Amino acid sequence: MSSEKELRITLIGAGTIGLSFAALHLTHLPAPSQLTIFDNRPNAEEYIRSNLPKFFQNSSIPSSISDIKVATSLQEAVSNANIIQESGPENLDIKKELWAEVENHAKKDALFWSSTSGIPASQQAQNMQDRTRLLVVHPYNPPHIMPLLELVPSPDTSLEVIQRTQDFWRARNRVPIHIRRETTGFVANRLAFALLREAVHLVDTGVVSVEELDAIVESSMGPRWAVAGPFKSYHAGGGPLGLEGFFKNIGGTVQACWDDAGTPKVGDGWEGEVFKQAREVYGTVDVAERDRITRRLLDVLDEEKGRKRSVDEEK
Amino acid sequence: MSSEKELRITLIGAGTIGLSFAALHLTHLPAPSQLTIFDNRPNAEEYIRSNLPKFFQNSSIPSSISDIKVATSLQEAVSNANIIQESGPENLDIKKELWAEVENHAKKDALFWSSTSGIPASQQAQNMQDRTRLLVVHPYNPPHIMPLLELVPSPDTSLEVIQRTQDFWRARNRVPIHIRRETTGFVANRLAFALLREAVHLVDTGVVSVEELDAIVESSMGPRWAVAGPFKSYHAGGGPLGLEGFFKNIGGTVQACWDDAGTPKVGDGWEGEVFKQAREVYGTVDVAERDRITRRLLDVLDEEKGRKRSVDEEK
Repeated sequence: MSSEKELRITLIGAGTIGLSFAALHLTHLPAPSQLTIFDNRPNAEEYIRSNLPKFFQNSSIPSSISDIKVATSLQEAVSNANIIQESGPENLDIKKELWAEVENHAKKDALFWSSTSGIPASQQAQNMQDRTRLLVVHPYNPPHIMPLLELVPSPDTSLEVIQRTQDFWRARNRVPIHIRRETTGFVANRLAFALLREAVHLVDTGVVSVEELDAIVESSMGPRWAVAGPFKSYHAGGGPLGLEGFFKNIGGTVQACWDDAGTPKVGDGWEGEVFKQAREVYGTVDVAERDRITRRLLDVLDEEKGRKRSVDEEK
Repeated sequence: MSSEKELRITLIGAGTIGLSFAALHLTHLPAPSQLTIFDNRPNAEEYIRSNLPKFFQNSSIPSSISDIKVATSLQEAVSNANIIQESGPENLDIKKELWAEVENHAKKDALFWSSTSGIPASQQAQNMQDRTRLLVVHPYNPPHIMPLLELVPSPDTSLEVIQRTQDFWRARNRVPIHIRRETTGFVANRLAFALLREAVHLVDTGVVSVEELDAIVESSMGPRWAVAGPFKSYHAGGGPLGLEGFFKNIGGTVQACWDDAGTPKVGDGWEGEVFKQAREVYGTVDVAERDRITRRLLDVLDEEKGRKRSVDEEK
């Protein structure tokens, strides 16, 4: 990559994810010297200039927002960029064609990132000449708020490309995690959907309501796992033997829960009642309010990590 | 229950959970007029007086801690109490015998609560004459920090007892949730263990390490679910159709993840590597530090809920 003074980022696709990434790049230093967006919808420029400001709290819109360039062709968008990040439709054919064309116009050492939540880089790269520089950089939505980025390389992605991608995000105080295999759904969604499946089962069998289930998670594992993930939490709960002690003490209960877990399927018939409860309880969720509160929690956690770092450094 | 001025709470069992409940009762108003603890370990009084202060941050030990009474017999402990809460060993025979004896000495309208994480009230009550007043009040550890209490009545528990128990905890700004069936592991642990199972699978198959998996949860669903539980989050993510829209958009990916989910069992052989990684990465977890940070997050969430309430009330 060129020196950071000359960092030019191009975003392809100006949907919710693309614009959220734009907001992230504008607010996390070091900022790019040039941020370009390309989207092939009609009136893309107007659409972007009127929708991007919505990603900021009132009065916190960065002045650099006016420096964003909206490209009118893919070639113009990518030919001078160091990083090309696509957040387009979840469609394999579109992505395959896109990367082949991007490769024709892009600089030799530009990084290629896909925001896909499910189409592996190995499939997206099928029409590329050099498959070493494409990887998935999957955010947890919305990326301008949530710190996680799952880096999912294909078997062809070079270690150097993975390393440069990790360095980029770490410098911006994000949490880029290298996923070592192109697993279905990557990692975060697999974990969340495993819990969701049991949640669906418990509501479907009348043990708790949708609202009660959410209240349980919000007042227990949500805040706990924000501070210490599941392994660390159970390691702390197992006494001197740690995680081993935890499984010694209550491994029987864990297995009993696993044996008794529900296995509903999508389309099984539970949907009617569960969707109805969600509609009745939540109506339209105020996402801006949710994001504002989430940001407050993340600020506390960042501050604590900063403090932790300096305590460690003093030793 | 008598008027709150005369609220007398007796805790049976002074292990980690019992003492954490003592700390909760001392710090969440309205406080009991009398808090009594009974434990049949040798030198119980000395043990309790030296260990309970550890549940408070420096300089925040309430002066009422010296008013705690340590009873020397079960009869003395329970005969005058309005609420009797046991946090003893996880052993059905011990609990069955305990409640039968408690019933002999307790006031007719005293509430009986068990902190068990797995032994249903219907089993614990087998030797009781009046089974209407016992229920499980299962905390998410540690209860003096975490707001959730799972109320799990037996089929014999009276609605009035459930209601009085809910009122008690709501008045203390806790989150008591009525679980409608005596499900294995109740609800919170079933949900957490479902995610843990997939976490074990992903580490066992080398997709991520223990530390990386925790970092993923800490930077994504932890803070997200602290603010909005899984149903509310996906309802928000589904556009105008809510949860239904979410499943319309990515139900295929959800089912693909469910189909591909791992099903490790306790004792399957994955333990060696997973326990080793946890030991190497975490050593001994600083639980006081974890609790201090968790409390900061919960304070933010409480403040936001307070603000939300007053905004709603103004309408």
